[in-house]
Amino acid sequence: MFTESLQTDGSRLLHLLDIDGLPIPIIQELLTEAAGFLQHDPATVYPDLKNKTVVNLFFENSTRTRTTFEMAATALSANIINFNVAVSATSKGECLLDTVYNLAAMGCNMFVVRHEAAGASEFIAKYIGKDIAVINAGDGCHQHPTQALLDMLTIQQSKSQIEGLTYAIVGDVRHSRVARSEIMALNMLGAREIRVIAPKTLQPNSFDGWGVHVYEDMDQGLQDVDVIIMLRLQRERMNQALVPSQEEYFYCYGLNNRRLALAKPDAIVMHPGPINRGVEIDSEVVDGSQSRVLQQVTTGKAMRMAVMRRLMRDRHE
Amino acid sequence: MFTESLQTDGSRLLHLLDIDGLPIPIIQELLTEAAGFLQHDPATVYPDLKNKTVVNLFFENSTRTRTTFEMAATALSANIINFNVAVSATSKGECLLDTVYNLAAMGCNMFVVRHEAAGASEFIAKYIGKDIAVINAGDGCHQHPTQALLDMLTIQQSKSQIEGLTYAIVGDVRHSRVARSEIMALNMLGAREIRVIAPKTLQPNSFDGWGVHVYEDMDQGLQDVDVIIMLRLQRERMNQALVPSQEEYFYCYGLNNRRLALAKPDAIVMHPGPINRGVEIDSEVVDGSQSRVLQQVTTGKAMRMAVMRRLMRDRHE
Amino acid sequence: MFTESLQTDGSRLLHLLDIDGLPIPIIQELLTEAAGFLQHDPATVYPDLKNKTVVNLFFENSTRTRTTFEMAATALSANIINFNVAVSATSKGECLLDTVYNLAAMGCNMFVVRHEAAGASEFIAKYIGKDIAVINAGDGCHQHPTQALLDMLTIQQSKSQIEGLTYAIVGDVRHSRVARSEIMALNMLGAREIRVIAPKTLQPNSFDGWGVHVYEDMDQGLQDVDVIIMLRLQRERMNQALVPSQEEYFYCYGLNNRRLALAKPDAIVMHPGPINRGVEIDSEVVDGSQSRVLQQVTTGKAMRMAVMRRLMRDRHE
Repeated sequence: MFTESLQTDGSRLLHLLDIDGLPIPIIQELLTEAAGFLQHDPATVYPDLKNKTVVNLFFENSTRTRTTFEMAATALSANIINFNVAVSATSKGECLLDTVYNLAAMGCNMFVVRHEAAGASEFIAKYIGKDIAVINAGDGCHQHPTQALLDMLTIQQSKSQIEGLTYAIVGDVRHSRVARSEIMALNMLGAREIRVIAPKTLQPNSFDGWGVHVYEDMDQGLQDVDVIIMLRLQRERMNQALVPSQEEYFYCYGLNNRRLALAKPDAIVMHPGPINRGVEIDSEVVDGSQSRVLQQVTTGKAMRMAVMRRLMRDRHE
Repeated sequence: MFTESLQTDGSRLLHLLDIDGLPIPIIQELLTEAAGFLQHDPATVYPDLKNKTVVNLFFENSTRTRTTFEMAATALSANIINFNVAVSATSKGECLLDTVYNLAAMGCNMFVVRHEAAGASEFIAKYIGKDIAVINAGDGCHQHPTQALLDMLTIQQSKSQIEGLTYAIVGDVRHSRVARSEIMALNMLGAREIRVIAPKTLQPNSFDGWGVHVYEDMDQGLQDVDVIIMLRLQRERMNQALVPSQEEYFYCYGLNNRRLALAKPDAIVMHPGPINRGVEIDSEVVDGSQSRVLQQVTTGKAMRMAVMRRLMRDRHE
Repeated sequence: MFTESLQTDGSRLLHLLDIDGLPIPIIQELLTEAAGFLQHDPATVYPDLKNKTVVNLFFENSTRTRTTFEMAATALSANIINFNVAVSATSKGECLLDTVYNLAAMGCNMFVVRHEAAGASEFIAKYIGKDIAVINAGDGCHQHPTQALLDMLTIQQSKSQIEGLTYAIVGDVRHSRVARSEIMALNMLGAREIRVIAPKTLQPNSFDGWGVHVYEDMDQGLQDVDVIIMLRLQRERMNQALVPSQEEYFYCYGLNNRRLALAKPDAIVMHPGPINRGVEIDSEVVDGSQSRVLQQVTTGKAMRMAVMRRLMRDRHE
């Protein structure tokens, strides 16, 4: 509720904070607009954000994510300011708002926010006022909405449809902001069945309200699925004794060609990256014909462009 | 003398190094030009520095200051190169000049210099030759001229005038480059009275020639002032035993609403940022109606734009 | 052979990976084009790479080199993305390709690659496909081709010709990517004689096929040379016991005015930078009239611009 009214104003998109509060028609329009970008050379530059200033506001170090947004903004002719902040241990709330108010007072049009705390983007959007659009580029274990949207686009490009298909999401669902956004989006867009495959230690405390079927056995879970979404195993999980060892994890939950054959013959494989080859996924799968891993990067740029363009357009109507 | 001739050539502004050597008519013209920028949406982009290259040459890490200059240069359509250098412990002078000569040889139009050594910008301007404009973005405890200019603009915007008013500058005057530039500028522009409020440990060895009245008691010093300029208390001062504790400092020199009421009813409060809420200033003041803290950020961008535009224009006449 | 076919396709330049496989006519055309840039104000901005995106892909930290490429790309109106990566200790090969494939999938036009491993740029060029041009900005001790090309341009500008002259390359030839590229280029362009002057500890295991004369005595080696190319002594060499001490090194292999007088009276002195004044070269020489150290920086930008423009032009013909 709170989020919905922040994110949208009627049919206008004001911020992109999470998938939950996003009206389905807006998701569908974003998919259509992003698909349009995919019909041109990915190196094409568009004038839509000319003279607009986008601030990459990263409270968590992430060269990779920052670069994807920077490439998308660059492709729309925006000016980019990279602002990396290490949040001090104390009085985070205050520091965060003071930093953000300062950047806003300098006159910028959009914040791309990455923060370790769930809800940080929402908090910023709530206080920043009406002039600046906020995009959530990952907040803690909470949400990563552009990743979910780009995955929807990838599925649509490969399978022509999202609804009516069966999905398996495999791995560290417990700590994955990607998984949460993904599952919401798939449910909203009419997935027939969503399966989560993970050891107990990497499952959330409860799946109430998630609308998923849970499997601990990967071979069972993969039977006849249309789309497999692998999650990255963060190396620090192994230190936390949530996973016995890399080898053991790969043995139980790594995707190889044998397991892939359990899914439908035309199933596709996705992974948000960066990939740990030989940990959660075998190189033969990553580099195989059913892999959409690199296409996800290309659709990711297109989707981020679509989101940025839409946000600017809706604010200036 | 030395500085004056480096900074200006008749009515042309060649570099912005410190307030001391800056002719009053140029200060007034900069105030007028910056005020012009404030009449438009702060996200407006101007073509004035199109195809000019500005190098942010930061020998001291300062994301915040770097970003303000980057936003200003971006708003003038300049190309920006961020060059951060950790100065090696030995032979600093030589390294500094070699670095600067190298960047100059690549062809750039402007250096924005931040350095821990007093006089570094002046030194660079002296040796760099006539083709490159240098802006001092803070040199040790010495000067921070754009901060002083933006504060003059903030005062002018709020109080319609700078001359004839009474000012209180509160806090760590000893180590503050802001305070020195500020006091000079206020004296040049006709302040009626400038008061410095600080404990003995945070006062310079001598105030000879500063043209200020010194108070150790904050309540006395704030009586009937028009403008209060708070200074940031660097946390490292506490380690140096110059301040007993954060709490003690706030008790004696923190600005709260009770103390603010001692000033004129329409007094304004300024702070160069970043703010330590609850150390030198209470949140109720920062976020109150007399605070001009965020306006300073907006005027700061406008003033930096005015300085950059003026420097480029004067060099190409 | 392998390299030649990667770098060029007939008279088209596809990548710039090393000097070895570069056809002499292309070298000469690059020299001519770069010389053209030198006839204009070094701060001039050209439209040639407008709407092209150049990724500075630095697996090794090098603010200086990154900045020279960034200045060159900026002067051609390109969009620049800086992507710095610390390569993880394990499975470098895979990580490298995954990173590169990801960036490619986002749609960029050119990679400027700096990597500690010899052959990294070639490896990338081999796998990246035909859409993206790769420039080697230094790979381990292997090659640094734009440095060699800019030095050829510097020589041509000062001496009107490259062929028929005598060259001395002094210092740490063993670890220098500059030296290898340089010697190849000089041999290809008709140097009369190339001398290498270095202590045994800083010579490679073998000079077979290098086409050089080796001297351990600097005074002998400098007799009547036309061009002296000094190499930087990396400070870490001293820890490796390859050099007794800085003072001792300067005594035996440092270039001072006395030694410079042994060369031809109109000899020029070059150094790739950054300079260790008083270690491999005396300040009196760096700042003297025979020094071309700063001119190398200016020609460096011009040469990098010529290379980038050529690569883009040849790909779009």
